[in-house]
Parts: sequence; structure tokens; C-alpha cells
Amino acid sequence: MASPRSSAGARTLSGEYYTSQAVYDTETERIFGRRWLCVGLAASIPDPGRYEVVEIEGESLIIVRDRAGEIRCFYNVCRHRGTRLCDDRSGTITRHIVCPYHSWAYELTGALAAAPTMDDVDGFDRADLSLHAVATFVWEGLVFVCFDDTPTPFEQAFASIFSKFSAWCLANLVPVHRTQYEVQANWKLLFQNYSECYHCPTLHPALNRLTPYRDSENDLESGPALGGPMQLTDGSESMTMEGRACAAPLRGADGVSPRLVWYYVVFPSLFLSIMPDYVLVHRVRRRGPSASTVVCEWMFHPSALKDDAFDPSGAIEFWDMTNRQDWRICEQAQLGIASRAYTPGPYSDLESMIAALDREYLSALEK
Amino acid sequence: MASPRSSAGARTLSGEYYTSQAVYDTETERIFGRRWLCVGLAASIPDPGRYEVVEIEGESLIIVRDRAGEIRCFYNVCRHRGTRLCDDRSGTITRHIVCPYHSWAYELTGALAAAPTMDDVDGFDRADLSLHAVATFVWEGLVFVCFDDTPTPFEQAFASIFSKFSAWCLANLVPVHRTQYEVQANWKLLFQNYSECYHCPTLHPALNRLTPYRDSENDLESGPALGGPMQLTDGSESMTMEGRACAAPLRGADGVSPRLVWYYVVFPSLFLSIMPDYVLVHRVRRRGPSASTVVCEWMFHPSALKDDAFDPSGAIEFWDMTNRQDWRICEQAQLGIASRAYTPGPYSDLESMIAALDREYLSALEK
Amino acid sequence: MASPRSSAGARTLSGEYYTSQAVYDTETERIFGRRWLCVGLAASIPDPGRYEVVEIEGESLIIVRDRAGEIRCFYNVCRHRGTRLCDDRSGTITRHIVCPYHSWAYELTGALAAAPTMDDVDGFDRADLSLHAVATFVWEGLVFVCFDDTPTPFEQAFASIFSKFSAWCLANLVPVHRTQYEVQANWKLLFQNYSECYHCPTLHPALNRLTPYRDSENDLESGPALGGPMQLTDGSESMTMEGRACAAPLRGADGVSPRLVWYYVVFPSLFLSIMPDYVLVHRVRRRGPSASTVVCEWMFHPSALKDDAFDPSGAIEFWDMTNRQDWRICEQAQLGIASRAYTPGPYSDLESMIAALDREYLSALEK
Repeated sequence: MASPRSSAGARTLSGEYYTSQAVYDTETERIFGRRWLCVGLAASIPDPGRYEVVEIEGESLIIVRDRAGEIRCFYNVCRHRGTRLCDDRSGTITRHIVCPYHSWAYELTGALAAAPTMDDVDGFDRADLSLHAVATFVWEGLVFVCFDDTPTPFEQAFASIFSKFSAWCLANLVPVHRTQYEVQANWKLLFQNYSECYHCPTLHPALNRLTPYRDSENDLESGPALGGPMQLTDGSESMTMEGRACAAPLRGADGVSPRLVWYYVVFPSLFLSIMPDYVLVHRVRRRGPSASTVVCEWMFHPSALKDDAFDPSGAIEFWDMTNRQDWRICEQAQLGIASRAYTPGPYSDLESMIAALDREYLSALEK
Repeated sequence: MASPRSSAGARTLSGEYYTSQAVYDTETERIFGRRWLCVGLAASIPDPGRYEVVEIEGESLIIVRDRAGEIRCFYNVCRHRGTRLCDDRSGTITRHIVCPYHSWAYELTGALAAAPTMDDVDGFDRADLSLHAVATFVWEGLVFVCFDDTPTPFEQAFASIFSKFSAWCLANLVPVHRTQYEVQANWKLLFQNYSECYHCPTLHPALNRLTPYRDSENDLESGPALGGPMQLTDGSESMTMEGRACAAPLRGADGVSPRLVWYYVVFPSLFLSIMPDYVLVHRVRRRGPSASTVVCEWMFHPSALKDDAFDPSGAIEFWDMTNRQDWRICEQAQLGIASRAYTPGPYSDLESMIAALDREYLSALEK
Repeated sequence: MASPRSSAGARTLSGEYYTSQAVYDTETERIFGRRWLCVGLAASIPDPGRYEVVEIEGESLIIVRDRAGEIRCFYNVCRHRGTRLCDDRSGTITRHIVCPYHSWAYELTGALAAAPTMDDVDGFDRADLSLHAVATFVWEGLVFVCFDDTPTPFEQAFASIFSKFSAWCLANLVPVHRTQYEVQANWKLLFQNYSECYHCPTLHPALNRLTPYRDSENDLESGPALGGPMQLTDGSESMTMEGRACAAPLRGADGVSPRLVWYYVVFPSLFLSIMPDYVLVHRVRRRGPSASTVVCEWMFHPSALKDDAFDPSGAIEFWDMTNRQDWRICEQAQLGIASRAYTPGPYSDLESMIAALDREYLSALEK
């Protein structure tokens, strides 16, 4: 199934893209301030009042399901003196979001419900003091936010992948495990690493036995979603330590082989990996030019969890091992690229998706 | 006793005052380089040769009592090659301040007494090489320094409060306990927190039972010293865990109720809290835009210490608990204010002293 | 033997030389980017394939002995995507230097030997992609590198000391102990500290008993190598805890007293200390305006190691103690010099070598 592809003479980005604070700040404005960013799973806050606090792009956000069941996102900042409202990483709000400093209380819609003694103050109007909201969209059970005041509609921003996996009903899945990683590398090195399997023989011998690095194909080759399927070898059922499936196959599109593994980067915040029997979600966040946080979640169909014999450990262990191999090499790349001796090097044809990713990145950065 | 007061439409300061290095540097020049700063207690260095080393505003200072009993302050810097002279936080100098590098020796007046082999050097004159001194003033037993070469006379700088507590003879008190806190918040958030009791019902239920938040009055409402008394409830004697006094009442002014607690900020370095039976001194120092150090000392009349049954633990525990509640909320405020979503919010009338403090601050900053 | 010398009215450098990032960056360009820097000992990598990784000036360098026995230095950066090649501090390369990411493989000469799948890429030529090399010179068994593309020949750069110790055959010595120190002080403070014994009576009483501070002489008084011999007291044999030698005397020049200890700074990276029976090498590296790393190695003639009774602990303990005394006082100097109160002070005549060092430094900085 090896596909013809070419990097067409492209070379790696120059060093400042990985080390410079000025580039980082331009990314803040042009990319992370404008694009849709994945901040969590709808399934993690299934009921009204359930919330998660997410630290992203230097901001603390409250992601909460309101009384009507809609998911909303607010800056974690009281409108009185700016105090952080929610300190725990997750929880349930029984009635109001209450500021711990002076007990100002907000509805789950963000409206200011009560502010002790303030009604006496000249010109005070509760209607002026709702929580600051952030644009939110839920796609395939994944919660995205956009810091832009006039965001590009999500369907338009991600038109190429928007309906691609509808048949899989990914919104039905539930997370069974979450691991957070702190990686001392620029976020783009993680995206590049995910975008090629040229490194698999050297770095991931176990993975390479299940899906040999040349048995891959790219079906989204430009734009903000990039990637394609890899073919499992005969005798392999899924990406797990033993190559056995952990659960019944997910429903997929008619006529599509159930023995493929689908890998996509969803620029600039997400890796989406669809195995025959489960889905892996990597959320990537920047923490400076040379540091990133990755949250990885393993998602299964709820029917699998009802089986007493259900054991996802083979899937969890497989990807935790693979993740750590990848983060470590990204850190080694970050260290080398920071050298004054680093100069752009040539991409192999197996790295054509990195070349496409670099083009998407540079195009976004220059707008 | 609730007093009429108003914040007159004032709003909180904008975010850069709490986060910007440029504002911090302007504060260094206009405020901390010019105003009198409290650096300790005269009672902590009661005898000639006793010294404390204080780290303040990026400088290390030696506060020492000289042979004549006068308190002096020197930069902790040898005039030869700049070596730090005193490394311990406190101690007693038996004869000279001796540099640990080449044994240059200084009198407690700062004069260079001896410098081995230097007398042979052409042009060397010991008289040129006294320790660099800092202006010093002792008020009510509190030691202040001023980095300005031509400081405003202390009596003039703090005219409004200078004689206000003369009758209390505060200089006679002695410290019985000291606690140092590192707070991840801008210094002004600590001053603002101290300046209002609007937060007391939410944050300090124990304190609010002894002195309900509305039973307060401000008698210094503008200038660098701001505050006023709060009224103890019937049945409460002092600010302690049980509401009982730890010691006999301090002498106060004739005709003034002994059942008041007096709270003043002394801008920009001190909180002075006078309870019926003891005094609390908070010294606040900056350590960057988002970090402060607070040293808190509990002071009693020496006669109390002679009582075998003397037990200050109820006072110490009460304020240590209250301090920690305050520092924690200041840290939550710092985090929220750093958000790009933070915008100035309205002060309640119970926050009128913060509005006065902000005015004093802005006026000092703009000069 | 006390020699007449004078600091001729020189004063210490002003504070910014020790604290300013701008001065640091100018040093990077004018001094550390141009001068020869000691990075290790040839004896540490005795066989082909043996390597050490050295972190210096923000760069990671591979120092390796090639198959022909020549010592080479490469930036630790793959020519493909910039990955750091060698992660261990030292080791042996059995065949190629292989990148851990995609298995690009390099000869010990730096030539690219293999790059999987790359031969299909248009315009790819292995000859363009050798490892980036750094100029290297081995003097007296010490390995130096120079980051300049057109370095001053080593013999010319260090003409004054180049042949001075030829008779000692220092290249034959082998290291028996290595200690690394992290010092919170500017590198120049360490050089200055090494360049005078005015501090010895105060700081090093044990050292001062073996070589009294006035019994010294300087025979290189200008240029990048500065220093001279000190005279051991009657009854002392070497610089050790007990003053006894640890080994037979090294061969020295004819007619030169074997009871001298020779101390030289080799600007800007090395202290060379030649005792009657062993040699001490201090390599000093900058890690920012106020931080340095020192690697200290104790070197003996290999014949000494063949003696079953050989015990270098008296030499190791002596200098480890002395080093720690020196680093501590350099840290105290760094702290004091960072004060706004610090002003240049006068050098004593015993500090004439510091004055010469400051001149060499300023001359290099201004070029």
C-alpha cells in the first residue's frame, strides 16, 4: 500500500522557530489567538454543573456544562477584583460559581447573580458584570475554544475533516484513562514527530512490527488537518502491547477496512488516532518556546466497559511507552536545534506530511 | 458605629500595575527609592554591636547599633572588592565588621579601621573608604530607612500619624514571635487586602465574630497612613483564638476606649495593628511584580513577659491563621489579574480605603 | 624571595562587568567566540572511538579520538533535523556516531556515512552533510577548541607560555580524580581570586603555612597567561594536607628548584597549577553573568599509579578544601558587587596580577 509521495526538496525550519520568544509571541497573536484549540472532552463533564479548569496559553479557563446541558467556557476571573474563581482542576458546582474573596456569585451561564453590598453603589449594574466568555464548539465529543472575538466558524475552519469520521460516532466514546506529560520541547517538534513514521524502525520497534513504517498512506495532505491510515500486519488486531484488540470494533464507515489505524494532526492543538477498537486523543499545549504539555486520553465505546473482562491496559501501556519514546527524542531535537551550529536539513520523502505541516504553519504565521 | 463612606465610583487598577516589569521599575525609582521603608524593630538589636541583615529592594543592609547606642544602616558591601561583609541574618559584632576576604575592618560607625598592606599603596586614604550608609530613622521603636540621598524628613513624611500613638509608648514593647511568609502576589494586593473588611465574612469567620466587618471607622482617610479602629463585640477582649486578652491592656490615650483595634497601612512597607493588649507589625517587601515577603512580629509590653502564666499563643495562632487566609486569596487575585480577560471592577463602599490607597500610590508613581 | 610589584593605582572593575547581560553577550562575541578554550584532557580519551561530551558556552560538543588517533571536536547536532547525537557524558563509539532519531550515521571524521531512504531524495548529497566541526588543538595534553572560523594559531595566541613547561612532559600525566563545582559567581571573580594570595592568610590558613603569601614571584606579567612560582617553606614537600609529597617529583627544567609551585591563569578558561609531584587543572566555564562551572582534575605521572602505596588523597582533600573556600568567597563577592552601592575599590600591590588580568580582559573586550 506504500504511496508515492515526495517532500519536494523541502528542508526543516530554521532554528528561531523553535527557540525565539519573538516567534512565540507572533504565534500567540496569529495562531493561538485565532485558531480553534481542543481543551477537553465533553464526556468528562457529562452533567450540568460539572466543570474542568484548563490552563492553556497562559489563561485559566472554566469549561462547564450549564443547566440546559450546553458546554460553556469562561475566563477564571471574577469581575470584581479579578480573583481566580475555581481553584480545583475539576468538580461540580451545585448552584453558583462563587468567588472565594467577597462571595460574588455567578450563574452557569456567566450572569452575575449576587454581589453583597454592591447594590448601594452608584452606577452598579449586575448586567454589566457577567463572566467573560470564550467561543466554544463541540466536535465529535471534543471541546474546542477560540480566543478570537470573531472566530472562523468551526465547520469552515476544519471543513476537510469535519464529516470524515461521522460514521464512527466518536461522540459516544468515554475516556477510561488520562496521562499528562511535560515535555521540554517546542510544540511543533511534537507535531512533526507525530507526522512521520520514518523514525519508527529506530525508535518504536514494537509499533513498527504492528504497522510497518512504509505501509501508510496520506489522505489529507494540505490544510489544518493532515494524515491518513496505516495498515495493520496480518495477525495484528490493534495497537496494543500484544497486538490484540481490547474491545469490539468501533462502528466505522461502510466499505472501509476495519484493519486500518487513522492518524491525524488537527492543527495546532490535537492529534487524533483512531484504532479499530479505541481512540487516542493527544492535546498539545505550549508553555514557552521550549516546553509543552501533552494530555493523552484513551477512549472506548461505553459497551466495552460493561464487559467484566474489559482490560484496556495493553492499549494504555503501548501508547504510554510510545509517547515517552517520542517526547524524549523531541527533547533531544530541541537541545540540538538550540545550537548555533544547527542549520536546516533535508526532509526524506517519508516526511512529506511535515513539509505540509510546515507550510500550514508558515502560512498561518504570516497572515 | 458604622460610618458613612463611599468609594465614589472608583474602580480597581488595571492589570499592568500588578504584572508589568516596567511598572515595577518605575515603582523602584519613584516610590521605593524615595519613601521611608520599615526594616525592623529597634528592640531586636538592643545592645551595641547587635545587628540584623535585611534583604530589601534587591539590597542587603546591615542594621547595627553602634557603641553610642545609635542605630545605623550600611550597605553590606566591602569598599575593597565589594564582598558581602555579614553573611548571617543576625548576630553580635564584638569589635569590628571584618571582611571575610582580605580582613578589611570597619568601625560600627562605618569608618575603615584597618586594611592590611594597603598603607603602602599610593593615594590610599582610609577616610575615603567608609562603608556606604543609608538614612535611618526610628519611630515608635520601628526602624525605617530611606534610599534617597536627600530624604523627606520622617516627621514630615508621616505627619498625620507621627504623634497619633505617642500615649501608647510603643517603643517600650518587645517582640515575642516572628514569622516570615513568602507570598506569590504583588505587594499592592497585600496592602489592599489589609485595607478592607468586606472580605471578612467570607474569608475570616473567626475574626468577623470578634470585630464584625461593618463596625469600623476610618480616621486617616488620605495620605501615606490610612485606616482606623474597629470595635470589639461585647464579650470579646482582644483578637485571639478565644477572644480573650493575653496580657494587661497597653496604656493608651486618655478618653479613648480600650475596646478598639486600630489598623493602619503605613505606605509602602508596613501594616500597624494595635490590639488592646499587644501590637502586630507586618513588614511587606517586594520581590518582583508577583512576589512579596512579609515578616510579621507580635509585640507585648515587657511586663507581660514577667508573668509566669503569660501565653501569647492565642494571639500568634489567630493572626497566623488570618495571615495565611489573606496571603492565599491575594495569590488567587494575582493569578486572575494576570489574565488578558481581567478588566477593572467596581469598588464597594466598604473598599473606600483601597480607593484612597490607590490614589496615594498613583500620585507617588506619577511624581 | 618577595618581589617588588605594584598595582600602580589600578582599581576593581565596575559592577556591570559582573552582572550585565549586555557585557556577557559582548564577551561571547569578543572573547569566548574568539579565544582558545580548554575543554578537557587528551588522556581522558586515550583510544580511538573514546569520546566526551562537553557543555560549554551554551553548546554541546563531542570531543572524540578518531581512528587515526587524532582528537576532533564536533557540534552535537545531527545534520538532518538537528537532534542531539550523544546523550551520555562519555563513552566509546564502536563504529559510527548514530543519530537516535532516524539512524543517520557519521564517521569519527564527521563524514556522513549513511542516511536511510535519503538517496532517493532529489539533490541529496552526503558530502554536504558532514558534522559541523570546531577547531581543536592539543597543548601539553590539554584539549583546546576555538569557535572562531579563522582562529589565531594556538602557538601564537599563547606564545609566552607555549614552551615554558616543555621539560615537564605534562602530556604524559594521567588524571586520577575529577570534581565539578557549580559556583554562583561571574567567571572573572574566579580568575581574580586565583591571581592573588592577599586573601590566603584570611581564607586559607593551611595553604598559607605551606607557601606564605609573600613568598611569591610573577614571571608572566602581561598577556593571556599570567602568574609565577611560590616557594614552599622548609620542611614542606608539596601542597597536601600534611605537606608531604604523594609521588616522586615530576621531571622539570634543568637548574630550576624542585621546591616551587607554579600558578598560571590561561585566559579565559584555565588555571594551571604545577606542584613538585602533581599537576592541578581547573577548567572554568561561564553559565551566565553570575554563574560558573569549574572542573578540577588532579594529574599524576603514570609511574606513581603503579606503586601499591600510592595515595593521592592528601592532594585531593587539600585542593577540594581550598577550592570550596575560594568559591564561597567568590559567591560573597558576586552578591556584594551586585549592590547599587558597589563602587570600584583600590587594589593592593599584592593584587598586581589582577590588574594585569583586568587589562588583558578589557583589551580583548574592546577589540
